[in-house]
Amino acid sequence: METQDLTFRLATQANLPAIVKMLADDPLGNRREIYTTPLLPSYDDAFQAIERDPNNELVVVETADKVVIGILQLTYIPYLTYRGGWRALIEGVRVDAKYRSSGIGRKLFEWAIARAEARGCHMVQLTSDKTRPDAIRFYESLGFVASHEGLKCHLPRQGSV
Amino acid sequence: METQDLTFRLATQANLPAIVKMLADDPLGNRREIYTTPLLPSYDDAFQAIERDPNNELVVVETADKVVIGILQLTYIPYLTYRGGWRALIEGVRVDAKYRSSGIGRKLFEWAIARAEARGCHMVQLTSDKTRPDAIRFYESLGFVASHEGLKCHLPRQGSV
Repeated sequence: METQDLTFRLATQANLPAIVKMLADDPLGNRREIYTTPLLPSYDDAFQAIERDPNNELVVVETADKVVIGILQLTYIPYLTYRGGWRALIEGVRVDAKYRSSGIGRKLFEWAIARAEARGCHMVQLTSDKTRPDAIRFYESLGFVASHEGLKCHLPRQGSV
Repeated sequence: METQDLTFRLATQANLPAIVKMLADDPLGNRREIYTTPLLPSYDDAFQAIERDPNNELVVVETADKVVIGILQLTYIPYLTYRGGWRALIEGVRVDAKYRSSGIGRKLFEWAIARAEARGCHMVQLTSDKTRPDAIRFYESLGFVASHEGLKCHLPRQGSV
């Protein structure tokens, strides 16, 4: 896989099954996701909500033969802090297991960070599970600094999923 | 200050000077914010962007005599992960220095978390600077778990601010 053969672009609805399959194929993801054919309607609903929102983008990387092998979500957020600065938040990062450690994740991040910069963001931020030390080292190699604790509070799940 | 005399609501443009003054009155905030009269236009721009976006809310707490003494920003984000779940992100938390350690921050968070739950979020998340151990203990006492590293990457600042 030569990284110059990769295409970086926003996801389309047609990519959704491949994306959910990738999200589920992971030690943490396989406890959280359910990959079925057809997909759970809740995945379609979330995709529509993301696509409707100009401040949310699903970025995918695909091979020359149009196979989606990586994904992340960018959220652009206006804040009063930092004299009224926009930030980009990255979540839901995954690279197909067959293509890991080949520089694809790095290219995906470089593309996403350049996009956030072009939107006028002064910061990109993310949280990474402490049980993923390789991921944390990867982010640090990209210039991220682990200056903060990432705190999560799970709420009682609403609805049927 | 009896907490039953407090009002929790969304901020209005008229509250903006009091909010920026609070954001600047903090060991980290005073290096990042500039409180002037009138405010820098970038604060007004950010306020408008937040107000226009149905997925962003500025929550304030005010006293019985209409003085704003606390602030936080809620961002509701649709994700594919967790079977297409919405999360709430909290940032830009500040309580007026004169009113700290009086339970107001806790009431403000309880109000914000209930609001996120009513919107169908399955998780509330935030990052907290590791140089603020008291803040981290406060969040843990509310049920947050520091399971993640919070990583930030500063980008070259665009524009004039």
